[in-house]
Amino acid sequence: MQRIVLGYSGGLDTSVAIPWLREHKDAEVIAVTLDLGQGRELADIRERALALGAVRAHVIDAREEFVRDYILPSLQAGAVYEDRYLLATALGRPLIAKRLIDVARMEGAAAIAHGSSGSANDQIRLDVSLRALDPSLQLTAAPGAAGMTTREVAAYARARNIETAVSTGPYSIDANLWGRSIAFGALADPWVEPPEDIYLLTRAPRDCPDEPALVEIEFAAGVPVRANGVELSMLEMIESLETIAGAHGVGRIDMVENRLVGLKSREVYEAPSAVVLHAAHRELESFVITRDLERVKHGLARTYADLVYKGLWFSHAREAIDAFVATIQKRVTGSVRLKLFKGDCRIVGRKSPNAVHERDPGAPWVGEALQRGASSGFLKLWVPSAEIPARTPVER
Amino acid sequence: MQRIVLGYSGGLDTSVAIPWLREHKDAEVIAVTLDLGQGRELADIRERALALGAVRAHVIDAREEFVRDYILPSLQAGAVYEDRYLLATALGRPLIAKRLIDVARMEGAAAIAHGSSGSANDQIRLDVSLRALDPSLQLTAAPGAAGMTTREVAAYARARNIETAVSTGPYSIDANLWGRSIAFGALADPWVEPPEDIYLLTRAPRDCPDEPALVEIEFAAGVPVRANGVELSMLEMIESLETIAGAHGVGRIDMVENRLVGLKSREVYEAPSAVVLHAAHRELESFVITRDLERVKHGLARTYADLVYKGLWFSHAREAIDAFVATIQKRVTGSVRLKLFKGDCRIVGRKSPNAVHERDPGAPWVGEALQRGASSGFLKLWVPSAEIPARTPVER
Amino acid sequence: MQRIVLGYSGGLDTSVAIPWLREHKDAEVIAVTLDLGQGRELADIRERALALGAVRAHVIDAREEFVRDYILPSLQAGAVYEDRYLLATALGRPLIAKRLIDVARMEGAAAIAHGSSGSANDQIRLDVSLRALDPSLQLTAAPGAAGMTTREVAAYARARNIETAVSTGPYSIDANLWGRSIAFGALADPWVEPPEDIYLLTRAPRDCPDEPALVEIEFAAGVPVRANGVELSMLEMIESLETIAGAHGVGRIDMVENRLVGLKSREVYEAPSAVVLHAAHRELESFVITRDLERVKHGLARTYADLVYKGLWFSHAREAIDAFVATIQKRVTGSVRLKLFKGDCRIVGRKSPNAVHERDPGAPWVGEALQRGASSGFLKLWVPSAEIPARTPVER
Amino acid sequence: MQRIVLGYSGGLDTSVAIPWLREHKDAEVIAVTLDLGQGRELADIRERALALGAVRAHVIDAREEFVRDYILPSLQAGAVYEDRYLLATALGRPLIAKRLIDVARMEGAAAIAHGSSGSANDQIRLDVSLRALDPSLQLTAAPGAAGMTTREVAAYARARNIETAVSTGPYSIDANLWGRSIAFGALADPWVEPPEDIYLLTRAPRDCPDEPALVEIEFAAGVPVRANGVELSMLEMIESLETIAGAHGVGRIDMVENRLVGLKSREVYEAPSAVVLHAAHRELESFVITRDLERVKHGLARTYADLVYKGLWFSHAREAIDAFVATIQKRVTGSVRLKLFKGDCRIVGRKSPNAVHERDPGAPWVGEALQRGASSGFLKLWVPSAEIPARTPVER
Repeated sequence: MQRIVLGYSGGLDTSVAIPWLREHKDAEVIAVTLDLGQGRELADIRERALALGAVRAHVIDAREEFVRDYILPSLQAGAVYEDRYLLATALGRPLIAKRLIDVARMEGAAAIAHGSSGSANDQIRLDVSLRALDPSLQLTAAPGAAGMTTREVAAYARARNIETAVSTGPYSIDANLWGRSIAFGALADPWVEPPEDIYLLTRAPRDCPDEPALVEIEFAAGVPVRANGVELSMLEMIESLETIAGAHGVGRIDMVENRLVGLKSREVYEAPSAVVLHAAHRELESFVITRDLERVKHGLARTYADLVYKGLWFSHAREAIDAFVATIQKRVTGSVRLKLFKGDCRIVGRKSPNAVHERDPGAPWVGEALQRGASSGFLKLWVPSAEIPARTPVER
Repeated sequence: MQRIVLGYSGGLDTSVAIPWLREHKDAEVIAVTLDLGQGRELADIRERALALGAVRAHVIDAREEFVRDYILPSLQAGAVYEDRYLLATALGRPLIAKRLIDVARMEGAAAIAHGSSGSANDQIRLDVSLRALDPSLQLTAAPGAAGMTTREVAAYARARNIETAVSTGPYSIDANLWGRSIAFGALADPWVEPPEDIYLLTRAPRDCPDEPALVEIEFAAGVPVRANGVELSMLEMIESLETIAGAHGVGRIDMVENRLVGLKSREVYEAPSAVVLHAAHRELESFVITRDLERVKHGLARTYADLVYKGLWFSHAREAIDAFVATIQKRVTGSVRLKLFKGDCRIVGRKSPNAVHERDPGAPWVGEALQRGASSGFLKLWVPSAEIPARTPVER
Repeated sequence: MQRIVLGYSGGLDTSVAIPWLREHKDAEVIAVTLDLGQGRELADIRERALALGAVRAHVIDAREEFVRDYILPSLQAGAVYEDRYLLATALGRPLIAKRLIDVARMEGAAAIAHGSSGSANDQIRLDVSLRALDPSLQLTAAPGAAGMTTREVAAYARARNIETAVSTGPYSIDANLWGRSIAFGALADPWVEPPEDIYLLTRAPRDCPDEPALVEIEFAAGVPVRANGVELSMLEMIESLETIAGAHGVGRIDMVENRLVGLKSREVYEAPSAVVLHAAHRELESFVITRDLERVKHGLARTYADLVYKGLWFSHAREAIDAFVATIQKRVTGSVRLKLFKGDCRIVGRKSPNAVHERDPGAPWVGEALQRGASSGFLKLWVPSAEIPARTPVER
Repeated sequence: MQRIVLGYSGGLDTSVAIPWLREHKDAEVIAVTLDLGQGRELADIRERALALGAVRAHVIDAREEFVRDYILPSLQAGAVYEDRYLLATALGRPLIAKRLIDVARMEGAAAIAHGSSGSANDQIRLDVSLRALDPSLQLTAAPGAAGMTTREVAAYARARNIETAVSTGPYSIDANLWGRSIAFGALADPWVEPPEDIYLLTRAPRDCPDEPALVEIEFAAGVPVRANGVELSMLEMIESLETIAGAHGVGRIDMVENRLVGLKSREVYEAPSAVVLHAAHRELESFVITRDLERVKHGLARTYADLVYKGLWFSHAREAIDAFVATIQKRVTGSVRLKLFKGDCRIVGRKSPNAVHERDPGAPWVGEALQRGASSGFLKLWVPSAEIPARTPVER
């Protein structure tokens, strides 16, 4: 009898998977659930897994690890997919893969199963991460991935009296402490605005307070360490900012994105603290680095987001960019002030001991040097190639 | 007696320049003023130039040309400097240079003078454009550029009873129909929020209407042609959007930017219609192009903005990127819906006959093909290099 | 009875495909062979196709079209895959796809088959091109692609007395007028130098003449028009250069490349005229464009090569880059001199009326302006950010 | 009486500078000469400096430091300016600046002077490096930089009987152990091949041995450690390869490059060991990294070369790229075989325990998975966007 480690979310697919894998694969099922701040009842989840027939059920609080090893590097890298998506789900997948493998090794299991079948992005990210970490482990298809339709899965569940405590209504939700993603057939038409009731963390802009919130975030070497003067761990800060920013309607993202395979799809996300922290970090970093460096960093940030989105967290490319980013972070010390108001998040101040900023507004030497500009040779030195169009017009 | 063509804005520097050039250069001064939508009294400006001693004063309505040949290409190129500045002033400079040269040739003048001395960016942009178009024309220093201090210029003006009709108060303003830039010593501290009174075009978010404005912009082959169903020329559309967006507080930009020479400085801009049109165009374009193409376009857009910012409008590099952009624009047909509310500008819908979008949300073949993912060879084809970290760990 | 258009190369796989498709698909087979300069007997090939049971056999001389619409744009784009592979085979595939579809439409066939099954790169390129041009046409598996092993194909051929006139010995060859690619199990070990006998077009360096050949290539608007003063069509020039460069051992490429799917593989190519023309065009182009433009072009050239390699010739991205490249080519007029000697191809001269080159070697204004460098403000204007490391050391 | 530290090369300009600075600046002159492998008499140079009136003359053997801290990082970064120039002189300048400042601090001097005035590139690189390290030190103009013409400098030298031991004939040479750069008016015409007598390190290809040299270079973690099996320090390896490669005519570079300021100029370099080591390192690195990583590295390598060329060695951008590069180097272990023959340097073998290479040439799973390609959904997963051109043709 083989032993299979199952990534167990408590949803219908993975609930069905427990008896199904036992029956169809003649396997002992070991359920593993990670707490990434998704906010579901986790004590309860262990009992449900056991009741469904799992021989053991591990529930792991991975929130600190998630923040430290996945969210923080991606924040410092400026990893924003196609200028908007802050990658909450995409960042969680490699950590889930890592912990599934940890448990599989500990339990001596030779196979891993998970329920990410409905969404191409998530299945690929998880499978790719699992293979990157240990290609010797077998990947076993859970019912959905094995070809059962949603209807068949539901019938199977009814036949065995399997209930799932968590219902998302008509929407398919993935959530962790860095953000929620919401999918639903009705959202697929990118011309139609999403209904208000899909949002849980953010108030509708028109219902927000009439007074803006001012938030001051202080960074030390690239890490956010204080909000409005109060020292907080980054996990605490994410929780606090979620409350504040959400109350002011900040953090809704409505976009059409290029999927991993196939074409584009319309996606809706909710990520109040991620929006605020990315805005603040980007502002401060660009304040303390030179133009040359900014241009390079910008390109790497886009690549980093693409890698994470494609499931290539565990890759040499990501590690090498991390080393680049880490070098810069030593300078990213200072504070940023943001104004949150009815859905808008706006930078209104930044300061740093490392600013690459002309403190003297007059910057007299620039003016002085340029005063001789027209007559002296400066202009010729500055951009002699500017004369090219006139000096060497195209021969036609 | 030589003849000098002077770019005349009506401000103090160029008003002083008219008598000063006559006296110090023994020259006939021909004043040239372009209407780029800066909104000052232009009939009056001609008389002032003549009263100050200009032998002729040309006032040219260049608004259509500005929109067609400078603003539209930069909009289609997605030219946004450092992700925020929409380049209003920087786009105006090459057109001013072009028209100064036109007049110089027409008038048989051998020299050109202008008043852009105080700001390094503007002087360089103008001088570089002038040289790019005709390196044979001499650039003559106006008083500021010739080394007179602001105080000396003011004294010279008082001594000759020169008054300028336009006063910007303590701020130094540059404006055209694509936006305003506001400079003032007090703004130089990037930690301090700008005072409310520097904004002319946009209402303070807290004073905006409690109902959002919904704006639907339709593009045909990359050109905005209708707003809320009403057909408008692009110049009319810019004017309409300025009113609507400004009333909802949209279009304020507060940033720290990398200057052309020297280090960073804090800049404040106001550009309601440019903000709305760039948001709409970018959204629609990304909706109709593939991921491969988006990645290339994104890089070129940054380069384009850098070129314009540096004064290299008249360059082969800009022309070549324009050709790339033009090819794409044929696809950029469709509509974008935006919600403007208390300073926030948010996309809430997009549609196009050319969308690269999976119309069927189920995208069944993706699901089906992936269902065989874990077991079949698909995954190995997809990202075999993902296994590299595990298969070839670094030898240490 | 359905009708299938088969891309027929005369090799074993496609020879077997003719009877096989008739038998297994109950189909009329129409053979199509393109002359891309691969140098095989083409009159003979028509008879062979008919003898094997094709109902019709089209033989199309596509060499001019290949040069004009595929090779020339890729030369102007500087499309070199991973800095070495000049894409001969990859450029031929989209043209083959286009012509297969032309014939299919003309013949009223609903399906297309081809023999590219052994090589992942070629199959994907061809299939992707076919789908890009007409997704409504069915792709029918030829025997190899349908799962028959090489051994089964050979047995099937013996059983039916199918002989192929062309034998490549132990190597698998693909050739057209832009170059040959050679694959063989023994070449797979990237540590072992390829044997001399795989090369057909190039002499071994040690057997080359002891006198170098000097070749002068003249371009007009990006098109090579004269070699050593003799006006030639580009097709003639490719043939001439193949002889000259091959005689001097120029054109061998031994590389390890990143394949389309999977990991890297070792590949050997032979492309004498492509090596010479790419070297000459790149040298001349960089001579007539500014640094800014070169930096942009370089990045696009890499992307272009990646697109062609991936089979995405028929893509909006390629078309947009073509437009960029075409704009530049207007300047690419002039001559380049190359010295070919024992395998080495070296530029020894370049001239152009459009050169962005300081004709006066003393470039006096640079020296003069810089003489004031240390004392004047020039240095501060030039790179003020250089002082950043000293002025704002990282706070630790 | 002030104290000036002078970078003393032994050439005419800096020899004249010693008495000239004493006379015109009323200064004590302290001469500093670095041994970077330029191969001139250094014992003698100290005496000459003292004889000319220097109060002290430091001669510093900085070859090890040069190799370890400047050449090796640039080799690992793949820093090749405009695909050819290997940056020998550009890499030496920051080290010279660093040591001049070390001596200035040790000697309590408040000013630094150097003789790099004739060449814009070198003066800027040195001045920028000096300012980056210590903007508080004054930069004093040496005679050339102070405005004396070459003729005046020569007259001054004759009047004081100043002779320079080293003569470069009509050429202006800069050399260190990483390569020589040769400038001469006659070289300025890029259409004319340089005369044979400017080369010192490389034999003319036609005079090279008729037997190629095979060189096998072994790297450990990015560092070359063995040549043909013999363990060597990197300094020793550079010296050995210079002999071998030079004897086979390898290492000549004739290019037209974009200068730091101004337009392009024709430059000739000689760098036998740098050419071989760059070729070997690049080949091995690309053999052990994935495609994704190669694409990122390639872009950073170009940026790195631009930074070094512009004099921005001491910059945060260079440091951050170094961190990226260092991460990759852990994998760069293995060997590369090169064939050197009559000016040509060709890779003929590469091996590594970390190769990202399909060892099994059949790569069965690729073939197998693709055999189902045409019929299965694979193709649709692979590049669905390929169908875009046909499915959504541009609306015209």
